[in-house]
Amino acid sequence: MAQDMEKKIENLINLYMEDYQGKKVIDKIKIFEHPDRAKVIDILEKLQKIIYPGYHRNSAFKTYTVRNSISVLLEDVIYNLKAQLGIVLKYSPLYEHADSEAITLAADSITFDFLEKIPKIREYIETDVQAAFDGDPAAYNTDEIICTYPGLYAIMTNRIAHELYLLDVPMIPRIMTEHAHSITGIDIHPGTTIGKYFFIDHGTGVVIGETTVIGDNVKIYQGVTLGALSTRGGQSLKKVKRHPTISDNVTIYSGASILGGDTVVGKDVVVGGNAFITTSIPEGARVSVKSQELTFNYDSGHPVERKEIEIDESWFYTI
Amino acid sequence: MAQDMEKKIENLINLYMEDYQGKKVIDKIKIFEHPDRAKVIDILEKLQKIIYPGYHRNSAFKTYTVRNSISVLLEDVIYNLKAQLGIVLKYSPLYEHADSEAITLAADSITFDFLEKIPKIREYIETDVQAAFDGDPAAYNTDEIICTYPGLYAIMTNRIAHELYLLDVPMIPRIMTEHAHSITGIDIHPGTTIGKYFFIDHGTGVVIGETTVIGDNVKIYQGVTLGALSTRGGQSLKKVKRHPTISDNVTIYSGASILGGDTVVGKDVVVGGNAFITTSIPEGARVSVKSQELTFNYDSGHPVERKEIEIDESWFYTI
Amino acid sequence: MAQDMEKKIENLINLYMEDYQGKKVIDKIKIFEHPDRAKVIDILEKLQKIIYPGYHRNSAFKTYTVRNSISVLLEDVIYNLKAQLGIVLKYSPLYEHADSEAITLAADSITFDFLEKIPKIREYIETDVQAAFDGDPAAYNTDEIICTYPGLYAIMTNRIAHELYLLDVPMIPRIMTEHAHSITGIDIHPGTTIGKYFFIDHGTGVVIGETTVIGDNVKIYQGVTLGALSTRGGQSLKKVKRHPTISDNVTIYSGASILGGDTVVGKDVVVGGNAFITTSIPEGARVSVKSQELTFNYDSGHPVERKEIEIDESWFYTI
Repeated sequence: MAQDMEKKIENLINLYMEDYQGKKVIDKIKIFEHPDRAKVIDILEKLQKIIYPGYHRNSAFKTYTVRNSISVLLEDVIYNLKAQLGIVLKYSPLYEHADSEAITLAADSITFDFLEKIPKIREYIETDVQAAFDGDPAAYNTDEIICTYPGLYAIMTNRIAHELYLLDVPMIPRIMTEHAHSITGIDIHPGTTIGKYFFIDHGTGVVIGETTVIGDNVKIYQGVTLGALSTRGGQSLKKVKRHPTISDNVTIYSGASILGGDTVVGKDVVVGGNAFITTSIPEGARVSVKSQELTFNYDSGHPVERKEIEIDESWFYTI
Repeated sequence: MAQDMEKKIENLINLYMEDYQGKKVIDKIKIFEHPDRAKVIDILEKLQKIIYPGYHRNSAFKTYTVRNSISVLLEDVIYNLKAQLGIVLKYSPLYEHADSEAITLAADSITFDFLEKIPKIREYIETDVQAAFDGDPAAYNTDEIICTYPGLYAIMTNRIAHELYLLDVPMIPRIMTEHAHSITGIDIHPGTTIGKYFFIDHGTGVVIGETTVIGDNVKIYQGVTLGALSTRGGQSLKKVKRHPTISDNVTIYSGASILGGDTVVGKDVVVGGNAFITTSIPEGARVSVKSQELTFNYDSGHPVERKEIEIDESWFYTI
Repeated sequence: MAQDMEKKIENLINLYMEDYQGKKVIDKIKIFEHPDRAKVIDILEKLQKIIYPGYHRNSAFKTYTVRNSISVLLEDVIYNLKAQLGIVLKYSPLYEHADSEAITLAADSITFDFLEKIPKIREYIETDVQAAFDGDPAAYNTDEIICTYPGLYAIMTNRIAHELYLLDVPMIPRIMTEHAHSITGIDIHPGTTIGKYFFIDHGTGVVIGETTVIGDNVKIYQGVTLGALSTRGGQSLKKVKRHPTISDNVTIYSGASILGGDTVVGKDVVVGGNAFITTSIPEGARVSVKSQELTFNYDSGHPVERKEIEIDESWFYTI
C-alpha cells in the first residue's frame, strides 16, 4: 500500500512536470521574477501606519517615541519597496534595455520620489475623513470613520497607488488597489485621478475606470460604475481617455452608471439612483430616472385584483 | 552612498514629523486611545466559537471537555471585551465626565449584560439556519450553511453587534459589522433590528441602514438596499427613523431598493427584482416592475433587422 | 471582587452549558465531524501554487528545484485532502452505510482521480488568462492578470471545485467557492459548468447558479446574475436545471440578469447593461434595454426649468 502510494505520487509528479513544459503563459518558473503580493500588501499596511500615526498598533516592535516608531516603519518600507521595484521595473518598456545597476538606481529614485508625496497624500485623506463625517448621519465620530469605513480605505489605497502609477511603476499599484477591492468591494483603478473631499458610502460594487477624472467634493454610493463605452478595441485602447470626467460638488446615487471618455458631468450635478448616463450633463442639473411603472398583484385567496401605480418620487436618496 | 541614504531618510522623517504637527484629525498619536480592530475581530471570532460550539476548531489550546473549552474562550472574551470597552466608552457622551473607576465599572457591567444575551442570540441564529435550508435548493445540509453561507455570517455578526449597540457601546459594534461587510459584501448597520428566520441569499451588495426594522421570516437577495431618502440633513439626522420597516413573511428579490423612514412593507409582500419603492406597500401585494422594453438588433453580415419585444414575465425569481 | 467575578463567570458557563442541551442544529459538539474550513482553504492555496508553479512563493520550505517543490506541495495536498474527504464523505447519501475502511478507500480514490485533472484545469486556466488579456485594455501584461485579477481567481476556484463536485464530494467544493466569493465578491456555485476562455471583468456582485452551463469565449461584467426563476419549490428543486445556458462567444454587460433553466442565450449574442432576460435569445442578437427616460431639473436659484430627454444610446459598454 505504501509503495503503491509512492508510485501514484511519482506518476502525478511526472504528469505535472511534463505539463509544465507546455510553454504556457502560466508555466513561468522563476518566482523571483515576479513581485511578491504579500510584500506589496505589507508595504501598503506600513504606509497606512505612517499616514495615520496613532491609529494602528504594531506588534512587531516596541518603541516609545513617534519618531523612532516612524523611522522603523519607514526604513522597512524603503527596503522592501526598493526590492519590489527592482523586480517590477523589468516589466516596463522604459527599462527594457536597462542593466541591473540602472534598475537599482531607478528603484532608489522612485522610492524617495514617492515617499516625498506622503504629506500631500495625508493632506487629501484628511479632507476625505471630513467629507465622510459631514455626509453620513450614521457616523458617530471621525475615529469611527478612520477605523471602520471601507470607502476611506479604498480611497487611501488609490491615493497611494496613484502616486506610484504617476511614476510609471508597473504592477505594484494594481496589486494595492486589487487588495483594497477584495477588502471593500470597491474597484478603483490606480490611474483614476481624484480631488479633495471624496466620499464613497457603503461602496460594494463601485467600479471606477483607469482614465476617470473626479473633482473636489464628490460623493458616490454603492454600485456606481464610472466606466467606458464599448469599443471592441481591446488592447489598442490602452491609455486612451475611455472613462468620464466628474466635476466638483457632484453626488451620484447608488446603482447609477456614467460611461464614456467624452462624458463630462458638470459642477453641482446630482445623478439619481440607477440612472444610465452616456452623454454630458450640464452644470447644476438634477438628473433622475423619470418613473418606474410597478404592478401590484393581490392573489392571496380571493380573485386576482390588479392595479398599477406610477412611482415618480425623486430617486435621490441617501443611506 | 550609505551616508547619502541616511541623510535622505532623516530628511523624510523630518518632513513627516513636521507634517504630524498639522493638527489634523488623522494626526492623533496615542494608539491606546483607540479600540484595537484586531482585538475586536478576535472577540467576534471567539463569540462565534461559543455560539457554534462544535463547528470551529481552536488551535490555541487543547481541551477535552466542552465545558473547559468554553471556559477558556469565555474568560478570554471577558478580559478583552472589558479592555476594549474601557477604551471606547470614552467616546460616548454618556461617559464624558466619568472617571476611570466609573468607566471600569461600566465596562464590567456591560460585558456581563452582553454575555447573558448569548442564549437569545443562539435561539435566533438557530432559526436563521433553518430559514436558509428551507429557502435554498442549492443547500445540501445545515452544516454546509453553518460552515459556508456568507448571509448567515453577516446576520450572526449583526445579532452580536446589535446587542452591544443596544447597550450604547460606541465603535465596537461597527468594527464588527464592517468586518462582516468586508468578508461577505453585506453591509448591515449594527442599529438594524431583525426578527427570527432571516435569510440573505448570495448577499453581495446588500445594504441595510441603521434604523431599519425587519420582521420574522424575511428573505432578501443580493444587491437589495433598505435605505434612506435624501434629506441633505447630514449629521442633524442622527438617530431619526430614516430607513424602512419590513413586516413578517416578506421576500425582496435582487437589486430592489426600498427607501424612507415612513415606508412600511406589509405582511406577506413580495417585491420583484430591481423594483424601486419609496412608499408603503399594502399587506399581501406582489409588486414588480411592469415591463422592460428590449431592442433586438441583428447586424452580423446581413442587413440590420430589428424587432422589439416586451418582457412582461414576473420578475420574481430565486437563485 | 475577584470571587464575585469567578461566580459571575461560572453562572455564565452554566447558562451556556444548559443552552447547549437544547437539541439545536447549531449545538453539534464534535468538531472532528466537520470539515476544517482553514484546512480546505490551505489545500486550495497549495493547488494554486501547483497550477501557477512560478507565481507564488512558499516560505514554509526552501527547495531548489521545481520537482522537489511540487513534490512537497503535492504530498501535503494528498494528506490533507484525504483527511478532509474522510470527514465530508459521511455527509453523502452515497456513503451513508459505508464503514470507515470503505470511506478511507473512497477518499484515497477520489484524491487521485481529482489530482489527475490538474493538467486539464491548467489547460483551461491558460485560456482564461489569454481571454482577460485580449479583452481588457487596462491589462498591462499577463503576469498582472495572474497576480491581481479577481475574476481569474474566482474562475480558477470554480474549475478546481467543479472537478470535486463532479466526483460527488460534499461541502469541500462549496467551502472553496465561498472563500473565492469572500475574496472577490464573485459567487459561482461549484456546480456551474464553464467552457474555455472565460473572462469576468471587475466581478463584484456576479452570481452564477448551480445548474448554469457556459460555453467557450464568454465575457461577463460586474453585477451580472445567471439565476433561477422563482418556483417556491425550495428543497424539492435540488439538482433540477434551474439556471440558464449561455452559448459560445456571448458577452453580458454589467447588471444584466438572465434567469430560468429553459433560457438559452444563443451564440454570438451581446446582452446590454441592466437587461432582464427570462426567455431564450436567438443566435447573433444584440439585446439592450430600449431606452431610459431621464428628468433634468435645474433648481439652483432661478425658477425651476425642466426638460426631458430620452437616452437611446446603445447600452453596450466595457470598462
